[in-house]
Amino acid sequence: MKEKILTEAEGLFWKYGVKSITMDDIARQLGISKKTIYQHFEDKEDIVFQVVKDKLDRDEEEFQCQFRGAGNPVEEILRVSELLRQHAVTVNPSMVLDVQRHYPKAWAVFLKHKEQYILTSIQDNLRRGVQEGLYRPDIDIEVMARLRIESVQLGFDERVFPGSRANVLAVQEQLLHHFIRGLLTEKGFSVYNQYNLNTL
Amino acid sequence: MKEKILTEAEGLFWKYGVKSITMDDIARQLGISKKTIYQHFEDKEDIVFQVVKDKLDRDEEEFQCQFRGAGNPVEEILRVSELLRQHAVTVNPSMVLDVQRHYPKAWAVFLKHKEQYILTSIQDNLRRGVQEGLYRPDIDIEVMARLRIESVQLGFDERVFPGSRANVLAVQEQLLHHFIRGLLTEKGFSVYNQYNLNTL
Repeated sequence: MKEKILTEAEGLFWKYGVKSITMDDIARQLGISKKTIYQHFEDKEDIVFQVVKDKLDRDEEEFQCQFRGAGNPVEEILRVSELLRQHAVTVNPSMVLDVQRHYPKAWAVFLKHKEQYILTSIQDNLRRGVQEGLYRPDIDIEVMARLRIESVQLGFDERVFPGSRANVLAVQEQLLHHFIRGLLTEKGFSVYNQYNLNTL
Repeated sequence: MKEKILTEAEGLFWKYGVKSITMDDIARQLGISKKTIYQHFEDKEDIVFQVVKDKLDRDEEEFQCQFRGAGNPVEEILRVSELLRQHAVTVNPSMVLDVQRHYPKAWAVFLKHKEQYILTSIQDNLRRGVQEGLYRPDIDIEVMARLRIESVQLGFDERVFPGSRANVLAVQEQLLHHFIRGLLTEKGFSVYNQYNLNTL
């Protein structure tokens, strides 16, 4: 039952945002009583926390698959970004904003994920790229990794890039390719140009 | 006298930040009475506003000189960034923060400057770079211009890049060269490599 509640809640959150969904909505949707929900979760914050945590765990697994499947760091960055692009289409930005504003426990998990998993993955990618001669030896791994994280967030920021959802994807595409190209050596460019012409 | 007050006030602001400097400090420093200052300025906010406005006007003139002296858009970006680097050494970051937090009129002038003058200058640079075949034809001028502005600000953000003042310059250097390289065509790289090896 716990799993069923989480799956249903997550679906509702993605669709309508977190704030507007009540425990009553979740119970009604599942045809169960609120009492049953409270047998498994302390409160709504608890559900939100668990939904975010499960989602991030699934994401990590999916990303690990893409990492393993990539032949080199350039392909890896392109693959992961394609995955992000697919995710972005389904993401309701108000869900993220709701969590940030109203669910500090769940937001902390997300920040930790960003800080530890994402940052480490990017740094690792950059390090291997430099080792393989695809990225410039004079890049500062820490600075470039932060730049990447921050510019992905920037691309979602409507105050910086106003516009539609389709536009967000175009902006992210611009930022991604600019980011990769800024790293590349000549050797890196010859690898990048192969992938860039084809879809992955 | 008005000019003298502004010059003195600006010097004090740069050195100690804006918030901590009082009208008394300015008067004492000039060996004049506060009454004399109030003959020229309504209040401290008025002085701060005028100091910021004059500073931005001087900056624009200095930048225009660099624009005119540059042989091509790549050199232009490198020259202007060198100018910014020199400025950054003398800037007390707490002055900028003070203005942002406590002097809305002066901050509005700064934001307008950023939005209009800086953004337009960068867009103009990018457009000419594309026309001259130095920057990729598929860059989105608007997105790249915003990226540049935001990443300069990012480089000054201690929450993103913790560290010393020397470190700020190194971070900006990384961001600058990454930004330019991300734009370049092959032709652009051959121009960039000339300048990159020499000091301007």
